[in-house]
Amino acid sequence: GWVRSVRSQKEVLFLHINDGSSLESLQVVADPSLDNRDLSFGSAVEVQGKLVKSPHKMQNVELKAETIRVVGPCDAWSFPLKMKERHPLEYVRQFPHLRCRNNTLGSLLRIRSEATAAIHSFFQDNGYVHIHTPIITSNDCEGAGELFQIEVGWARESVEKTHFFNVPAFLTVSGQLHLEVMAGAFTHVFTFGPTFRAENSQSRRHLAEFYMVEAELSFTESLQDIMQVMEDLFKTATNTVLSKCPRDVELFHKYIAPAQKVTNVIGKNYLKDFFFFLFSCRISYNEAVEILKQAPQTFTFKPEWGCDLQTEHEKYLVKHCGEVPVFVINYPYDLKPFYMRDNEDGPQHTVAAVDLLVPGIGELCGGSLREERLPLLKSRLESVTVCLNYRYLDLRKFGSVPHGGFGMGFERYLQYILGVDNIKDVIPFPRFSHSCLL
Amino acid sequence: GWVRSVRSQKEVLFLHINDGSSLESLQVVADPSLDNRDLSFGSAVEVQGKLVKSPHKMQNVELKAETIRVVGPCDAWSFPLKMKERHPLEYVRQFPHLRCRNNTLGSLLRIRSEATAAIHSFFQDNGYVHIHTPIITSNDCEGAGELFQIEVGWARESVEKTHFFNVPAFLTVSGQLHLEVMAGAFTHVFTFGPTFRAENSQSRRHLAEFYMVEAELSFTESLQDIMQVMEDLFKTATNTVLSKCPRDVELFHKYIAPAQKVTNVIGKNYLKDFFFFLFSCRISYNEAVEILKQAPQTFTFKPEWGCDLQTEHEKYLVKHCGEVPVFVINYPYDLKPFYMRDNEDGPQHTVAAVDLLVPGIGELCGGSLREERLPLLKSRLESVTVCLNYRYLDLRKFGSVPHGGFGMGFERYLQYILGVDNIKDVIPFPRFSHSCLL
Repeated sequence: GWVRSVRSQKEVLFLHINDGSSLESLQVVADPSLDNRDLSFGSAVEVQGKLVKSPHKMQNVELKAETIRVVGPCDAWSFPLKMKERHPLEYVRQFPHLRCRNNTLGSLLRIRSEATAAIHSFFQDNGYVHIHTPIITSNDCEGAGELFQIEVGWARESVEKTHFFNVPAFLTVSGQLHLEVMAGAFTHVFTFGPTFRAENSQSRRHLAEFYMVEAELSFTESLQDIMQVMEDLFKTATNTVLSKCPRDVELFHKYIAPAQKVTNVIGKNYLKDFFFFLFSCRISYNEAVEILKQAPQTFTFKPEWGCDLQTEHEKYLVKHCGEVPVFVINYPYDLKPFYMRDNEDGPQHTVAAVDLLVPGIGELCGGSLREERLPLLKSRLESVTVCLNYRYLDLRKFGSVPHGGFGMGFERYLQYILGVDNIKDVIPFPRFSHSCLL
Repeated sequence: GWVRSVRSQKEVLFLHINDGSSLESLQVVADPSLDNRDLSFGSAVEVQGKLVKSPHKMQNVELKAETIRVVGPCDAWSFPLKMKERHPLEYVRQFPHLRCRNNTLGSLLRIRSEATAAIHSFFQDNGYVHIHTPIITSNDCEGAGELFQIEVGWARESVEKTHFFNVPAFLTVSGQLHLEVMAGAFTHVFTFGPTFRAENSQSRRHLAEFYMVEAELSFTESLQDIMQVMEDLFKTATNTVLSKCPRDVELFHKYIAPAQKVTNVIGKNYLKDFFFFLFSCRISYNEAVEILKQAPQTFTFKPEWGCDLQTEHEKYLVKHCGEVPVFVINYPYDLKPFYMRDNEDGPQHTVAAVDLLVPGIGELCGGSLREERLPLLKSRLESVTVCLNYRYLDLRKFGSVPHGGFGMGFERYLQYILGVDNIKDVIPFPRFSHSCLL
């Protein structure tokens, strides 16, 4: 493992060695004659000896060393991490190749790994088929300005432009279309992979490359079903993380999450039980607008039916509901994409969409029922400018079924359960405008 | 579910309904009065009734229908899939949005899903931390001609070119560098995600977007360790697939895999046991060249020490060893990338690299020990043209340890265990030169 601390006393040499399998290090007790000037913070060592019961309360076992070999020394002066220092997250972000050896990032990445496994297990255990939806896609329908386009290395320099795929190709912004294809065969499907937005933003909630969990369910006619899956996914994943990495999670709640957050959201004594009763608040968009209109505070954007909810509005709604997750359902027809299912409810015409807002983050999940009725989908497509592939309509021609789905931002999920303010600190190698280190 | 067959008799109406959860369909028995002209192959139905023990040997249960409702009809004439027809894989490939409703692709995608879960479990169970290595990277060191470059949607049209990330950015060809970073903190790490090659190839073994399983192990000084993980991974994943999807696998071995392959590789009666004794053949590159030189056949490329093994050579070696997987180790120093560990064994100077060759596919896995010694790495870098980030050398300065790793092509793995000839048929949405459908 790697040396986390060296304490050389007259009679005894203490080392703490960590191999990244947990936050805790192994205490090594050695004769001072085994000391060595290469034995410093960050160096890699091989220690041979006897594992014995420790006389100290802090640990069960310790290693009585017989030999200590420094496998790889570490120059303490030039190593940017320092022994026993709690480096701010902004500081370690400068060193994408070394920050994983910092306690906080170490815990984060172990939690991220367990959460990833838990999400896979949740869906597999519930009969969902996992689909690798494509990263490269020729759909350029949604938010064209925020798409990354891809080209073959040096071809773009040539005068005559030819496309590798014959058509312009982009990095995916969502696997939904591809999941809809698959939901028409497997009923329940999910994907968990990278998605991309070329947003020129340095926000603490946005990355150019981030991970999304997306699920699609056939034979469902109610938003209730979609919300239930969101809630079950959240609870199952969080429960697993809490029980598999209690120490790592504790580090965040103790030292990283803002105090107010710890009290209000994730710092309760019985964290697990707490999460189990969190998802009680469900309001319609119409109700949300009424709540905002009656709010004693003034907003920069005046709340008005038919307008998008702004961050300030989302914050207020979450606060209004008691700083718990809030489902907002049935958004205005004209605000939402063409594929969402018409509620046919005028004059305040809505679609069956749902957003899950959570404290400190805003939108964590977004979903909807999809318009499965060919005539309604066709007539809607006539009124919007979408360069849709004919194949999407085909899905409504050959055994179309009521279906719906949602996506959850994985980094926002981690930010929320751990109380991490900046999204750059919950992903191994953050990519955002002006930065692509390593 | 969706109707797979309709058989209307005088006294009784038989339907087979499939919801994609397995290859088998549910038999529905109904009164002929429940027939309906929308009840055709491909249509989506909701059937209510009683699940009863079936009198037929072919199934345990059947559904005695009380009501049948056609949720989504399907025009049999324009639907490209036909009832009870075994469509060739080339034919269904034309319909990326519908082919998953074909039996073969249905089975394939269920197997792919189980294999994905099995690979995650294998690594998690063995203490590996899962890392989402980045898709977008600024490393343009390896095989520059085969890289996809990314740019912001319409910025490339502007006169003044500016990069979204300030530097040119590419789609990853391997997560190795990023895993090496993480292996320096967590000892054992893995990743399982998309990788990209802009190869202008229509080969049955290459895709522009494909999935790689990659692992990196610290504190290992022997290729033996790396080979053992490759072997354990292969066996565990295959064992899981065989036990979780026996019927789906059977479909491939019965109808898809070429007869010779079934006999030689995957068609043995005791498939599981068979795989457990497969990995016995390990030869050095030096031995491989000798075997090829003594071969009774003539090759297009004359085998010669210092030259790359060609497909024809790999095929011969696999045949020579009895059509089983073959590990070839210790390749010429000058053939391999700078990061591979020097065996310091001149005059036939080699590095600690390993390739796993398998029947019908060729290279399934490739790995190596990495050069962890700073002076050797530095001197090697002086003799090659690589625009390496300084951070790679940093990893050798601060607690460097002997380590190694490998990558396995996930699609090739599926091709191998299922006997699928074309790689386009083992991925949900294949991307290759001139094609990016959906």
